[in-house]
Order: sequence, then structure tokens, then C-alpha cells
Amino acid sequence: MISEDDNGPERSEADTGSRRRFLAASAGVGAAAVAGRALADSLADVPAREVGAPLGARSERSKYVQLDRIPEATPGIRNVDPSNAINSKTPLNKLVGVITPSDLHYERSHSGVPDLDPARHRLLIHGMVKKSLVLTMDDLKAMPSVSRIHFIECTGNGWENWKKADENLTVQNTHGLISTSEWTGVPLGFLMDVVGVDRASTWMLAEGGDAAGVDRSIPLTDEIIHEAFVAYGQNGEPLRPAHGFPIRLIMPGFEGNLNIKWLRRLKFGDQPWMTRWETARYTQLLANGKARQFQLRMDTNSVITSPSGMMEIQPGYHRITGLAWSGHGTIKKVEISTDGGNTWEEAQLNHPVLPKAQARFQLDWIWGGQPTKIVSRSTDDKGNVQPDRKSFIDQMGTNALFHYNAQQAWGIDAAGRVRNVLA
Amino acid sequence: MISEDDNGPERSEADTGSRRRFLAASAGVGAAAVAGRALADSLADVPAREVGAPLGARSERSKYVQLDRIPEATPGIRNVDPSNAINSKTPLNKLVGVITPSDLHYERSHSGVPDLDPARHRLLIHGMVKKSLVLTMDDLKAMPSVSRIHFIECTGNGWENWKKADENLTVQNTHGLISTSEWTGVPLGFLMDVVGVDRASTWMLAEGGDAAGVDRSIPLTDEIIHEAFVAYGQNGEPLRPAHGFPIRLIMPGFEGNLNIKWLRRLKFGDQPWMTRWETARYTQLLANGKARQFQLRMDTNSVITSPSGMMEIQPGYHRITGLAWSGHGTIKKVEISTDGGNTWEEAQLNHPVLPKAQARFQLDWIWGGQPTKIVSRSTDDKGNVQPDRKSFIDQMGTNALFHYNAQQAWGIDAAGRVRNVLA
Repeated sequence: MISEDDNGPERSEADTGSRRRFLAASAGVGAAAVAGRALADSLADVPAREVGAPLGARSERSKYVQLDRIPEATPGIRNVDPSNAINSKTPLNKLVGVITPSDLHYERSHSGVPDLDPARHRLLIHGMVKKSLVLTMDDLKAMPSVSRIHFIECTGNGWENWKKADENLTVQNTHGLISTSEWTGVPLGFLMDVVGVDRASTWMLAEGGDAAGVDRSIPLTDEIIHEAFVAYGQNGEPLRPAHGFPIRLIMPGFEGNLNIKWLRRLKFGDQPWMTRWETARYTQLLANGKARQFQLRMDTNSVITSPSGMMEIQPGYHRITGLAWSGHGTIKKVEISTDGGNTWEEAQLNHPVLPKAQARFQLDWIWGGQPTKIVSRSTDDKGNVQPDRKSFIDQMGTNALFHYNAQQAWGIDAAGRVRNVLA
Repeated sequence: MISEDDNGPERSEADTGSRRRFLAASAGVGAAAVAGRALADSLADVPAREVGAPLGARSERSKYVQLDRIPEATPGIRNVDPSNAINSKTPLNKLVGVITPSDLHYERSHSGVPDLDPARHRLLIHGMVKKSLVLTMDDLKAMPSVSRIHFIECTGNGWENWKKADENLTVQNTHGLISTSEWTGVPLGFLMDVVGVDRASTWMLAEGGDAAGVDRSIPLTDEIIHEAFVAYGQNGEPLRPAHGFPIRLIMPGFEGNLNIKWLRRLKFGDQPWMTRWETARYTQLLANGKARQFQLRMDTNSVITSPSGMMEIQPGYHRITGLAWSGHGTIKKVEISTDGGNTWEEAQLNHPVLPKAQARFQLDWIWGGQPTKIVSRSTDDKGNVQPDRKSFIDQMGTNALFHYNAQQAWGIDAAGRVRNVLA
């Protein structure tokens, strides 16, 4: 929700507190330049102005900035050969705001990344419809479009911490299988109207054009008909091949693998197709040994991105910041504990907070130098609260691989080393 | 404004009309695949699935996608040597949604693009303040931050059409000096509180660290204190050098040149400094021969990006789309004329429509094949209406170079050639 009050920067009571604490802390360590530097000194320090490079066809990154995704760290192995990796994770520890640069959006594929020719690509829509259609990219671009900022999250995001916590993981390792983009494309409801989907149809099969032919059965709920769309744009430009070029399905709030990339077919029917991706894969092994199918929605979640795993901090003033999200709707509240979950303080949310998008939260904190754990927990507008680890394990057991959304703790030792620990 | 209704794709009456018109038109030309192709044919056409490339550290663009900015086209010269260009324009004709990819954000610089070392860069804040400060990048990143989606527009955007219309210009040529990003940084109001700005201070000088040392005097209105910020992030990542790395001022709704790049100094005072950038440059020569200073706010504007200059269209169904924006606030309405301004129809706005951000509009249209002009005009939430060309020239004359916001017309001839024309 955006109200009139959200049009400008937030200058709430929290900010007044921040200013006071920042000024108090800056007399000590952590912001030395603020307190200690005289004006005359400073001018000598500032680099001389330099004549710049000519303008170009594209703005490249600074030579001082290094941003890379990393392949999944197999336990005990830090460096995975990217050509054998099954995913590539977003560097959440180095990003700000909520938009993920398109080249750093996480990847998960089952047979690599095809670069399909958009002039030859087609979308077939058939099954329980009045008239089967085969659409070209030009057809799709001539249709009404929506542009939405949504997260996509791999259903396996966070699994590394299910059974144990490897202390040498960064937040990119633990939570890097989520990213947020502005997606642009054609509403599913419009396409359904165009082909005349039978009212008795309750399921839709979406199939990808990769070699693995990933296909999933999707229930035709009102929410999905209303919110899903076939996207050709990401952050203003055409999708990149790793993210489904020329088209992918966008399923706001649902498992990443339902957002079918390289989309080639939508089929309408009245029951799920029981593809291998929903029988052999992407089922959830419960504590009682039974497997749950079609647990499709991503749960209420959050993680502190700074300070986070493998960082080092000094005693004094810090700005804790991170990301929260929920497949159920809009984040309403994020609380932070700086004492391992004993007490909680509400964080400030950056506005606008958009539905089924990541929300940026922040809270200032003065660290006294004692070992502790910092933890975040989120609440969405449907009242779902991110569970602590014990409640989550009590309910889900430790056999499953997907939909891990327990609270993430970062341990801080007396030397200021921030490490991945169990909450 | 976002209401509950804005959470899902827009499925208004306009869409019902779209579906009807799309289906009617698709029986003819322009969407041949929809109507003419039998299912059996189609499968033969669809490329075989291919094994993809391995995952990588970054997702690159498809080999089928070419996106480049272009330097300003000096009249009569199509190709400007980029090393001598004074700006580099965003390819609005090839983008969708509202976010501009960071590498395609327009550039305008006065002495090229420095790549400053963030470890050595400083922001000096002084003048009418309790305590002068010199801030490091670490200091700034420890402060409260906001993330906002805003446009930045060069005050010269559109000047090519002030006196005449070169028919060979694209929308990238005519309107490519505007882009929209999610910017992240520290609220100006917070920085003012930290240094203790004197209540008698009514102006602020912002100075860049490029060789030209661009500096501008900025009035300390409530709006500016409330909305401006010092940004270090753009679309989730650090600013790129072309856009001010490591920091720039963000002045939502105001002239691009006030969004000082490579920001090194903020000075507070009680009168403007009358720098060369507000005396010799960036003044507005009026019809009566006098020059207006400090015309800082960008006006209510819009442009159709498709179909647009140098495109060719066929008779039949089309989706007209474009971008609207206002430095005064939020776009409330965009109207489109497909008969050269005689009659107008309200376009659909993609939601959310954010304040001082570009808004995407669209309208479906069946072109009968007769020569015509298509035009857009926008209205913002303060009641400002984008002027037609005659009203604009009557008021501003033809001596000025900046703040051109007259309605843009695209002429379409009997062969379907779309050309830049005067409205």
C-alpha cells in the first residue's frame, strides 16, 4: 500500500532516534571521519578532479566494484566449477534497495541456458479451450501488458541450514536463490479469454522450451488467473536467456520452478498432469515419511543482509539491514533481535512495500562488543509470522528439502566475526 | 497511489474491449499466426529443444537482442563520434515497463566520466551549519536509507523539435534524455539534522567531483528537504561511474543537472551562489529576450514509444504504448489522439503509478490504413496538462533550449511509415 505519507522519504520517530544514536556513536569508532577530521585536513584528502572517459553505448560498472553470482556451495566444497553448477546465487550481501540487477538475478536450470530465436519461438495454447492458438512474439507484444515488481524464489532457497549451519557461509550462500525484478508481460486472464478456456478447466500445464522440458501443473485459482502473466520484459529490457528469453511465466508468490522459463506451451485441463517435476521432483518429504505434492506457495521469510556471514564488524554504531518477503501478500512488519531472540524491536520498512516483492528493512544498533546473535522475523498482511527454527523443525522434520523459512541467525563473536549459526 | 485493486493485473473494461478488438483484428493481418495456423503446422515450426549453456557469474543478454544508447544527433549528422558526444540517449523505442536498465540510463556530462575511488572519496558538508563534516562512503552507508523509483530528465530533452521536426528522428533521438531507476541513499533531511543546518539557511550548493566541477544552487523548500537524497545505489547495485559513482544527489522531479553526480560538497547558505551553471548555462531565454533563472522543475510530459519514429506498421490491430511523467507529482491521466488531436481517448495506465516516476500507458487501436497523426497528452495530480505545440510556442517562443514539453506527434503515411512531425 502507498499512502500520501509514503511519497517522501520516511522521517519517522525512528529517524530521530537514529540521528541521536549516530551522533553519539560517531564520537567513538566506526565513523571516525565524522568526528575527528578537521576541514583543512579533509580537502587535502579529497582526490583531485579528473577528466573523465568519453560517453559510451552502455554504462559499465566501476573498476572498483566486483559483483558476481556464485554457484551453489556443495557442503565442504567452496568453489564449484560453474559448468557443473545447478544454480547461481545472487550476491545479497552486496546489493541495496529491492531491485536485483538483471545480470545478477539468481539462476536455476535443469539443462543449461538455451538462447532461443525469438523470431522462431511460439507459444501454443490448447486443451480445454474454444480455439487452440499458436502465438508469435509479435502477437504477444500487441496484447495488453502489465508491469509488476515481484520476487522469484527457488523452492530450495535456505536448505543449507535445514540440518546444520556451516559457519563459513555468506548470505549469498544461504539465501541467494531469491531475486526481485520489474516484469512486463501479458495477463494470463487475457490469454484465457482470447482462447476461450472452458469454465470446467481447473488446471493449466505450463511447459518450457529447454532440453529438460520442465513442465508443471498449476491450479487455476482466482488469485492465479488474476495475478499470473506471460512476461517478455525484465527491468525494462527483454528477458535474458538465463531468465527465460523470449518468454517465461510469472507466478507471483509461488515456487520459482512454476515460473516456467522459455515458455512454449499452456494446456488447459481438469486435473493435474502428474509430470516428473511434481512426482519425482519438487515434492516435500514430511517428518512422517509421506511426501506432500503441490506445496506451491513460498512462505513468509526474511534475512539480515548486513551484517551477515563472513563480515567483520567493530563495536559501535551499525545499521542493520535486510530483506523480507511473503508469497502470501505484503510484508507488514519485520522485527529484529540483537540478543539471540530474547527481545525484539520493530525495524523500519522502506516504502513503497509492494505485494509479493521483497521489502527492505533497517534498524540502527550500537554493538557493545559482547558475543551475540542477531535475528530477523517477518509478518505479512495475512498474519503469517516467520517461524523460529525449533517450531519449524518440530512441524516439518528434517527430511524435506524445500520451503525452508525458519528465522536466520548470524552469530557475532568477541572479535566481531559474523558467522552462520543455528538460531 | 496503490489500492487493493492495484495488486493484480488491470482487468478493466478497457481489457474487455481489447480482447474483442484483438480477436476481430486477428482474423485479418497483423496477427497472422493467431488466426491462420493449424496446430499440426505449428509444432513443425517450433524449434527443437536445445541443450543450454552453463550457468555463469552474470546473465548476459541474448545474441538476438541489441540495445545501445546513441549520442545526440547533431542536425543533419546521423552518427556522432561517441568520444565527442555530450550525451548518450536511452533507447525508449526498445524498452518496456518503467525501469531503465542501469547500463542504458541516459548520460549527460560536461567533462566525461571519472571513475572515482570510493575508498578515497569524501562528502564535505559545511556553510551555515553547527558542525562541518567530512563523510566517507562507510559513514553514508551506516545512515538510514530510502529506496525510491524516480525519473531523471535532462532539461534539454526534446529540444530537437522546438523549431522544426526532422522526420528521420526516432523517439530515442527526440526523448531519450530521460530514464527511471530505483535509487537508494541517505535522506537530505537526515544529513541536515546531523550537521545542524541553521534555520536561516534557504539555499544549498551541491558540487560534483568531475573535472568541470558542475555546481548548482538549490532552494531549501520543504518538498526538497523532504524528498531529496544522496544516492549510492541504482537498481540494486552501486551507481555506475556514468551516473555518479560513488554518490550523486537525487532531486525528484527537478532538472537532471541538479542531480549532481560524483557529489563532493554540500554547502548551506542564505542566497544562491550564481555559479556559471546557473548564469552562463541552464538559463531559459524567453520570447521577450529576457533570461529566466532557476526554472528548476521538469514539466508534465509524455511520449508514445510505439509506434514511433522510423517504425513501419501495417493496417490492423495495434497496441499504442508510451511513457508519461511529471516533476510536479503523479501522473493521473494520459489521453491519446489517433486523428491528429481532433478527438481523444483515455489510455490505460500500468499500476503502480509512482510519484515523480515514469508511468507506462497503453491503448489498443485499429489502423485503417489512412494517413494520420498519433499524439499523447498527460495530466498530473496537480492538474497540470501537457500543452499542445501551439500553446507552448505562444508562451515560450522559440529562443529557449530547455523544458520543452509540448505534445509529440508521430505522422503515419499511407505506406505505414511512422515519422517525427510537428503536432
